Amino acid sequence: MPSPLILDGKQTAAQIREELKAANILRIASGQRPPLLVAVLVGNDGGSESYVSHKIKACSDVGFESRLIRFASDIRQDKLLSVVESLNNDAQVDGFIVQLPLPPQIDSQAINLAIAPSKDVDGFHPVNVGRMALGLPTFLPATPSGICELLRRNGIVTGGMHAVILGRSAIVGSPLAQLLARPGEPGNCTVTLCHSKTIGIKEHCLRADLLVAALGKPGFVTADMIKPGAVVVDVGTTRVKDHSRPSRFVLRGDVAFDQVAPLCRAITPVPGGVGPMTIASLLTNTWQAATTP
Amino acid sequence: MPSPLILDGKQTAAQIREELKAANILRIASGQRPPLLVAVLVGNDGGSESYVSHKIKACSDVGFESRLIRFASDIRQDKLLSVVESLNNDAQVDGFIVQLPLPPQIDSQAINLAIAPSKDVDGFHPVNVGRMALGLPTFLPATPSGICELLRRNGIVTGGMHAVILGRSAIVGSPLAQLLARPGEPGNCTVTLCHSKTIGIKEHCLRADLLVAALGKPGFVTADMIKPGAVVVDVGTTRVKDHSRPSRFVLRGDVAFDQVAPLCRAITPVPGGVGPMTIASLLTNTWQAATTP
Repeated sequence: MPSPLILDGKQTAAQIREELKAANILRIASGQRPPLLVAVLVGNDGGSESYVSHKIKACSDVGFESRLIRFASDIRQDKLLSVVESLNNDAQVDGFIVQLPLPPQIDSQAINLAIAPSKDVDGFHPVNVGRMALGLPTFLPATPSGICELLRRNGIVTGGMHAVILGRSAIVGSPLAQLLARPGEPGNCTVTLCHSKTIGIKEHCLRADLLVAALGKPGFVTADMIKPGAVVVDVGTTRVKDHSRPSRFVLRGDVAFDQVAPLCRAITPVPGGVGPMTIASLLTNTWQAATTP
Repeated sequence: MPSPLILDGKQTAAQIREELKAANILRIASGQRPPLLVAVLVGNDGGSESYVSHKIKACSDVGFESRLIRFASDIRQDKLLSVVESLNNDAQVDGFIVQLPLPPQIDSQAINLAIAPSKDVDGFHPVNVGRMALGLPTFLPATPSGICELLRRNGIVTGGMHAVILGRSAIVGSPLAQLLARPGEPGNCTVTLCHSKTIGIKEHCLRADLLVAALGKPGFVTADMIKPGAVVVDVGTTRVKDHSRPSRFVLRGDVAFDQVAPLCRAITPVPGGVGPMTIASLLTNTWQAATTP
């Protein structure tokens, strides 16, 4: 078996950033201001800090404006709702995100519902979720659309594939199932959605032409679960303690890469696979928010 | 093999109607008016005429008010939009439907988007589609929720089943895939969604504990595609010419019932299976529209 194609999210995301940067230069040259993304960060969870700082840096890389608004973890819900309301009404703000997870006193869905759909660059508001399901133009959720874009830009034709997705979350597994099943390319997959209640998950995985692992269980997918020649996408990014590193942790995917990769036609690494694509999709959505009338 | 349980939609729908009728009597006794459903019918397609008349009759059976508004098939889109607008604004109207299909000069999605989500008892508006996907309270689309209710009321426990759905339409296959995959009961299925681009559809069907056929291809599912002991749900209702009948047609399902039934644990007939449940779900949604503050 030839060595697998590494689906290099870092490189593909860099390509997308170059395109956005070039388009943004033209936009500014025409006398318009650059897009503005605002990130709201509550508390100081290590993962959230890291995600948000990557998003802010990505904006800067492409010449978008960005603003980070921080709150202590004891912020009250009504205060956070009023922040959302003021961002909704601020004509300078093209799009904004409220980084998840939120502390327990906050009803995350209430915050989500308060975000103006036209500025919901995470694509989590019901209006945008529904528009995606109906195939209408909208902000696609960043991780699923990032995966589709990674496949597309690396020449993986999905039509006719049997895609098996592990994990039914509202932000990854469920919307990705819809995107891969719908008409078009990427798309036109027969899609099997597996989750914690699935019986015989190994047998399902063994039938996958395209296997997407989004469980958050480090090393869950092993070589004995892979159909030779499959395309494997690893969405897992669990922080596992590693005292040998300066950061004291290492990111581990859901796929046991070393044993799985030799069996694959193509595979994403962790880190450097889906993660950078997620951030690239957020930039694409921000661009769309700024440029769609 | 014992003879299969017939999932009698006619009887189950009658049970739901009895419950709604009793609740409605209490409502009226408390001094409130009965729910009002309005159906908008454009043109005179035979299938649409029949569906709408069943819906109107079902309202009358449970003591709901209903109104049928008819238009010629050459109605202009702006006129139909203004009808929708006036129904949105009429406080007496609890819910309304615009019967599909619409003639070619009408953009069906534009009509759908114009319907107030709070009166969208078909559950087709993006807001309601998105709320369903996120597990928020909403109007569930009538056919998928009717199927779930039929299974639930007939003691079919779906958790852990492998459900295979044939057909990815926005009103049946795609939303049913979501309802069956989500947490809860009915739900917690591993779901495989198949469609016209699926390769090896027979092998997929053979793995189904719960097989749902929603293709509109009469007799497509044959005995050699059934895992013994499967539960089979037939959503197909294709009108096939039959000159021996006074109506000149017969309704044919997607399942070759006579050969498939002996292999099944449970199966829906056509007619009298999913069809009556769809109408019962519409009544349930209309009740919800009238009684939800």
